Amino acid sequence: MDSSLTQLSPQKLRHLIRAGKYTAPTSGLAPGYTQANLVIVPQDLAYDFLLFAQRNPKSCPILEVSDCGSKKLHTFAQDVDLAADFPRYRIYRNGKLAQEVTNVSAYWRDDLVSFLIGCSFSFEADLIAAGIEMRHITEGVNVPMYNTKIALQPAGRFSGNMVVSMRPLPAAQVVTAVKITASMPRVHGAPIQIGDPAKLGITDLAHPDYGDAVTVNPGEVPVFWPCGVTPQNAIMHTKPAFVITHAPGHMLVTDVKNTALKYE
Amino acid sequence: MDSSLTQLSPQKLRHLIRAGKYTAPTSGLAPGYTQANLVIVPQDLAYDFLLFAQRNPKSCPILEVSDCGSKKLHTFAQDVDLAADFPRYRIYRNGKLAQEVTNVSAYWRDDLVSFLIGCSFSFEADLIAAGIEMRHITEGVNVPMYNTKIALQPAGRFSGNMVVSMRPLPAAQVVTAVKITASMPRVHGAPIQIGDPAKLGITDLAHPDYGDAVTVNPGEVPVFWPCGVTPQNAIMHTKPAFVITHAPGHMLVTDVKNTALKYE
Repeated sequence: MDSSLTQLSPQKLRHLIRAGKYTAPTSGLAPGYTQANLVIVPQDLAYDFLLFAQRNPKSCPILEVSDCGSKKLHTFAQDVDLAADFPRYRIYRNGKLAQEVTNVSAYWRDDLVSFLIGCSFSFEADLIAAGIEMRHITEGVNVPMYNTKIALQPAGRFSGNMVVSMRPLPAAQVVTAVKITASMPRVHGAPIQIGDPAKLGITDLAHPDYGDAVTVNPGEVPVFWPCGVTPQNAIMHTKPAFVITHAPGHMLVTDVKNTALKYE
Repeated sequence: MDSSLTQLSPQKLRHLIRAGKYTAPTSGLAPGYTQANLVIVPQDLAYDFLLFAQRNPKSCPILEVSDCGSKKLHTFAQDVDLAADFPRYRIYRNGKLAQEVTNVSAYWRDDLVSFLIGCSFSFEADLIAAGIEMRHITEGVNVPMYNTKIALQPAGRFSGNMVVSMRPLPAAQVVTAVKITASMPRVHGAPIQIGDPAKLGITDLAHPDYGDAVTVNPGEVPVFWPCGVTPQNAIMHTKPAFVITHAPGHMLVTDVKNTALKYE
């Protein structure tokens, strides 16, 4: 990635994205700052979705909820336009992907509520700093993600199963990885399963349901974390008439440092 | 307290309370089990209240939200009747205390949503186990609580300032107390202020706004934690037509152990 890009502040990056001059994935940008997933629903679905997230905090950790109709935030970014500051959005109609666009200002409605959801980019930087290889980064692919048989707590019109991400780790590094990620529950927290994919209903690590397969070397243990794809999946399951999300990998770069998401 | 009472299981205690045979405060009952505060609001206020709690998790840590109209829970207790299992309830009309009763079955409505909110009883047991005296328990009084000038993040119709509880600690025990309580954010977590009441807008420790004053000995530091009185205060501030809460000190005894509320 262009080093002049990685040195930009979150605010300058959002300005660039808002002007339509950056439309690519945000991985690696503004190192140390939290990036966030997005789900926008009409107000009549907002209570059910917020309750669903409250009941399933490991897979649906809410960072912030906008005021109804507002494109602004209170906490995670000051100079922000939620309709323009993600490089790419997806518009779903009746549960089906209808369009992928770089700006949703033309689709905005006064009854929309935006949910920012934690992203595991946050804990990956800390794991790497502790000397733990992130295989998907080394291999230059997307992290492998799998559907599981773990039923989530339903809430109102929302239900579904947990989606997990997988990172293979040398057995000797598993405890360190658990400790580091457990300290950051707002970006999914500790692993949900260590070493036994069958317990999650996963039959073939080589064929993930989302993202790409990665190499698992002899002596390495597959470690599974709750994944931010879960809330999008659950919301699509109910086939709502109109939903906007970010496009995978195309996150909001916020003004809040990852370290601020650790428990005080 | 009668030792035959403290040895009862949470379920047996709830049965006793449900039958109207125990109507006193629950402090000291079922040691090791989580007790919970209660706020019940009509559905039209539920989204605003849930959002208010999401934005102010230190003072309003939601343990569980009932389904609309339901007197049951999914997680914190199996055999439970939310209209009968608190020893004492308060009914507020237009923001004013209208009645205090031991059972709210006669007032139940299909549009009521119940919020269970974390209670600092949980971390007090751990502090005592670490050799830290809880002065209000030693002196046999209610914990002192104070209004502060810390404005909460507003949400919809709810706004207000944080209420804090205070415990005086020897300076040498403050770090231990921070570490223990920081591991339990679902029951208010780490202190919000250490040693400087003026920073919170508190002018006189000897005259708390709620509860009772306690002795602060030379060499002791007043330590302030966000308090579960906060959400009730905020909700009353909006003068809603109809709200039910528990009566202070008269909590729900749940089936979940305090240790389960620590981060995994």
